[in-house]
Amino acid sequence: MDILHRVGITSSPEEVGAALTTIDGLSRWWTEDTDGDEAVGGVLRFRFLPGGFDMKVLDIQPGKLVRWEVVDGPEEWIGTHVQFELEQVDGYTIVLFRHEGWREQVEFMSHCSTKWAIYLMSLKELVETGTGRPAPNDVQISNWH
Amino acid sequence: MDILHRVGITSSPEEVGAALTTIDGLSRWWTEDTDGDEAVGGVLRFRFLPGGFDMKVLDIQPGKLVRWEVVDGPEEWIGTHVQFELEQVDGYTIVLFRHEGWREQVEFMSHCSTKWAIYLMSLKELVETGTGRPAPNDVQISNWH
Repeated sequence: MDILHRVGITSSPEEVGAALTTIDGLSRWWTEDTDGDEAVGGVLRFRFLPGGFDMKVLDIQPGKLVRWEVVDGPEEWIGTHVQFELEQVDGYTIVLFRHEGWREQVEFMSHCSTKWAIYLMSLKELVETGTGRPAPNDVQISNWH
Repeated sequence: MDILHRVGITSSPEEVGAALTTIDGLSRWWTEDTDGDEAVGGVLRFRFLPGGFDMKVLDIQPGKLVRWEVVDGPEEWIGTHVQFELEQVDGYTIVLFRHEGWREQVEFMSHCSTKWAIYLMSLKELVETGTGRPAPNDVQISNWH
């Protein structure tokens, strides 16, 4: 079971790619507390107040694709895959997002789906305006933040 | 295949329910161009610039559940179901949203998933502040609006 999203960013795939493949870029739309090894085969550490995620970088095709495997984090996330596919259409870079391989449609999956949408809008804002809304200043959606 | 979301609204289930079951409420967070018959068995008409959706109201359990069937609209939507389940937790009314029964993971499904998140945040804003962001003044996410 997969979470799917699609946003369009008025920018080049290279600029969107930079926001998805560098510690600096990632820390400016997802969570400020980001570190690790951004190369293919490396592990990225994303931390939030309640915990976080370690992502192994499985594939980077510059300006086209970024694919991660969740190697540590909440039990429901471990072994799932996160993918950003980029394509250019009408002056936009379209981001086709997938968080694949959820084993059950738990309430936490619903929360993560909405929250991914919020973060993808933060990515869009970062690339278009220079300023995103990464955690801990992200848009709060519920009692689960 | 389903789109799932979860938002929490600092308000009572009754107030959230009113925004989900009346033409007035619905027109203030989803699309201003809303009419039809809001009773169970009735059909609600939601219109946007590029088209719209007709929803048969299948079930209303006040303060608990709203369930619609898509009876007209884009081909991918026809026959799918939209459900809002409400529960009270920690001073929030949690909205568990499902748009169920997509036949294929088409790009339009990804778009609708992100857009539903945006509209659910509009619902949250409406109920919490009195002002939502229904179409045509909704937040634009891409070349597909």
